[in-house]
Amino acid sequence: MVTADILIRPLSEDDHADWHRLWTAYLEFYETKLPEDVFQTAFSRLLSGQPGEYQGLIAELDGRPVGLAHFLFHRILWSVEDTCYLMDLYADPAIRGKGVGRALIEAVHATARSAGIPGIYWQTQEFNYKGRMLYDKVAEKTPFIVYEKNS
Amino acid sequence: MVTADILIRPLSEDDHADWHRLWTAYLEFYETKLPEDVFQTAFSRLLSGQPGEYQGLIAELDGRPVGLAHFLFHRILWSVEDTCYLMDLYADPAIRGKGVGRALIEAVHATARSAGIPGIYWQTQEFNYKGRMLYDKVAEKTPFIVYEKNS
Amino acid sequence: MVTADILIRPLSEDDHADWHRLWTAYLEFYETKLPEDVFQTAFSRLLSGQPGEYQGLIAELDGRPVGLAHFLFHRILWSVEDTCYLMDLYADPAIRGKGVGRALIEAVHATARSAGIPGIYWQTQEFNYKGRMLYDKVAEKTPFIVYEKNS
Amino acid sequence: MVTADILIRPLSEDDHADWHRLWTAYLEFYETKLPEDVFQTAFSRLLSGQPGEYQGLIAELDGRPVGLAHFLFHRILWSVEDTCYLMDLYADPAIRGKGVGRALIEAVHATARSAGIPGIYWQTQEFNYKGRMLYDKVAEKTPFIVYEKNS
Repeated sequence: MVTADILIRPLSEDDHADWHRLWTAYLEFYETKLPEDVFQTAFSRLLSGQPGEYQGLIAELDGRPVGLAHFLFHRILWSVEDTCYLMDLYADPAIRGKGVGRALIEAVHATARSAGIPGIYWQTQEFNYKGRMLYDKVAEKTPFIVYEKNS
Repeated sequence: MVTADILIRPLSEDDHADWHRLWTAYLEFYETKLPEDVFQTAFSRLLSGQPGEYQGLIAELDGRPVGLAHFLFHRILWSVEDTCYLMDLYADPAIRGKGVGRALIEAVHATARSAGIPGIYWQTQEFNYKGRMLYDKVAEKTPFIVYEKNS
Repeated sequence: MVTADILIRPLSEDDHADWHRLWTAYLEFYETKLPEDVFQTAFSRLLSGQPGEYQGLIAELDGRPVGLAHFLFHRILWSVEDTCYLMDLYADPAIRGKGVGRALIEAVHATARSAGIPGIYWQTQEFNYKGRMLYDKVAEKTPFIVYEKNS
Repeated sequence: MVTADILIRPLSEDDHADWHRLWTAYLEFYETKLPEDVFQTAFSRLLSGQPGEYQGLIAELDGRPVGLAHFLFHRILWSVEDTCYLMDLYADPAIRGKGVGRALIEAVHATARSAGIPGIYWQTQEFNYKGRMLYDKVAEKTPFIVYEKNS
């Protein structure tokens, strides 16, 4: 079904401009605007290769960067193996339907498995209908909801 | 409102038997039974004091261990500061209503803040009615739901 | 498990004072206060015995009215038989746990079935935890949510 | 934004074939197949003009029937006025995005208001993403979920 030429590859130093553009667009979806120092810290952490830091993937469609994924391996007490949290997932709306989002999810999953991590998980807003159309096809909705305490 | 004598303190080596009993009871709530090596690995990680590992708190009521919390500080790309994931929270049902669950949440929150982390979050099953009665009082329900991909 | 002496019977003219008290308490749960003419119209319709009107049940515990149910038989196009909408269900919180809510639901269901109606349904707020603890035992949660357009 | 020529009009005897086709397609969305006698009973009730029966609307796009709505005025005890339950709403997927669904909802709402009924409501499956994209624009999601007891 997916016939476009999609390439998923690790984020690299050379991606800074594309990454900045794509993550900005992603954050706009969440009506979020982050200061430049957060971008710089994030980019540097994504490339650090250190445990405890997020990793990044870039999706290219016909040679053009059109999507990204940020994910973190972290401990989970219920198993000896770590788990993998897919925090950010973005595909340019202009190329939606070509399989970029799905390819990114599958690449994160494959990266986790090759590190001995059996599964990945992510959060999404209950009303992210377009995202959920994809997620329902490639993953399982759990009965879990999220609470936060900030003050 | 809370008049019972509740003490929240870090998990220590001496707590092994109580911790084992409390976590087992917690896991039963989720209809989960873990092998003994997972218990051993978890206990050792909880006490390691290393970054990237969970920390543990024990709640005592009138001098008796009746509850626990496991939480992890981890990166979040959207801010320079880390966030805090409260993974496990348990209060013995026999002493529910005395404020132990709330005291544990507040202690995790205070521990995070003293480490420069502004907020904590956790997941719960949509139908965990008893838990949510408490969470609605002390925290905010977000619109986020959780997907997972295990195969 | 239920040992109290619960009697469920149709609402009658003589119940006006108790019904008024119980329905007022129910509406308070929904932070709703209705004008007296709505009470009068509702009571008169409940006793009319006409098609298209709600019917009422009163629950007595040890001879004292402690709960009520209002329900409506109405058409459903997907079947030749009507369906039954349980609109209001109330049990005095002071006597919760004695089985009054469950007995009311079962009496509505039995009343519907004796009229040739196979099932009943009702709506509840997602966060009505105490209600849902009961509903999960006696009924099925559907995947349906409710939208309204008032302006 | 909507430029297509949409006409919403009451269902009539002459619509039987189109109505049968459209309702069949709608029911397929819910993986439901009803026996022919239910179709016949439904059509006859929709045209009866009697209180307690559903009414029907047909949507035409450029002169072709492409959608339908079935709705019921019924009592609600919380007000003297009736309410309006929009049970079935369908627009041919082939013409989605042209405003047919929205026009049907607005026509049901206008029909209700002209009968002195202030609001309409409907149920939808939590995961009916395409429907909800529209409903979120024209209506309010309530916190209500639906339980049913069929046995």
